[in-house]
Amino acid sequence: MTTPCPLCQASAEDRVWANAELRVILVQEPDYPGLCRVIWREHVAEMTDLAADARARLMAAVWAVEAAVRVALKPAKVNLASLGNQVPHLHWHVIPRFRDDAHFPDAIWAARRRPGLAPAQKELDLGLLRTTLLANLDTRAK
Amino acid sequence: MTTPCPLCQASAEDRVWANAELRVILVQEPDYPGLCRVIWREHVAEMTDLAADARARLMAAVWAVEAAVRVALKPAKVNLASLGNQVPHLHWHVIPRFRDDAHFPDAIWAARRRPGLAPAQKELDLGLLRTTLLANLDTRAK
Repeated sequence: MTTPCPLCQASAEDRVWANAELRVILVQEPDYPGLCRVIWREHVAEMTDLAADARARLMAAVWAVEAAVRVALKPAKVNLASLGNQVPHLHWHVIPRFRDDAHFPDAIWAARRRPGLAPAQKELDLGLLRTTLLANLDTRAK
Repeated sequence: MTTPCPLCQASAEDRVWANAELRVILVQEPDYPGLCRVIWREHVAEMTDLAADARARLMAAVWAVEAAVRVALKPAKVNLASLGNQVPHLHWHVIPRFRDDAHFPDAIWAARRRPGLAPAQKELDLGLLRTTLLANLDTRAK
């Protein structure tokens, strides 16, 4: 590494949960309240760079986050993505999507279709999301 | 279902591999040769709608596809995404990305940065990708 990786050296993250291998953060993304990121601790680029058991543990955390997002926020759809073109350090976006959010039904990386938050996004209980994330991750991802 | 789901009723797909639960297709996407899609057969929307063992089998196919894409095409990065806002039927995009492709380093759903294919994309051996997909899926996804 010649330039520091921003995911190796976290700063000002809203970290909800972590273990020795990964952390789960709530992302400050104005258009997408409740957007979570699951970040693998080791600096590797691709899922198939991980051994099968490590891969399974990372995905167990992603599923625990998805389940928490669904229970706590009741989105119209959950979007999952591991891209890493800008920061090639394994991380998963778990994105609660709502009809009439800024880009629905397009991906959140597309041109926006409308300003501001959807009505359902204004009512989200992010405190409930935090407690549900903790409960799910404690029991399912360990 | 009031409208037919385009992923329940496949038409004109370039299907590379299938078993009773899922199929893998090569997508005709001019900007992204080698883009693969892994489509779960059952009409369910979210990963956490699946039982854990089914989820693991679907992801085993995704990893087998990612590994084949890496070996056969040597992309700069692989992008993985399960979105489904437009078609809420579980499917994974496995996208080989190259520096100077139409959107790099942005997501493929963003505004394009440049026309046409990157030099590396013009040299891709999609025949090799097919044989590698078959070998990987036969041994790893079953």
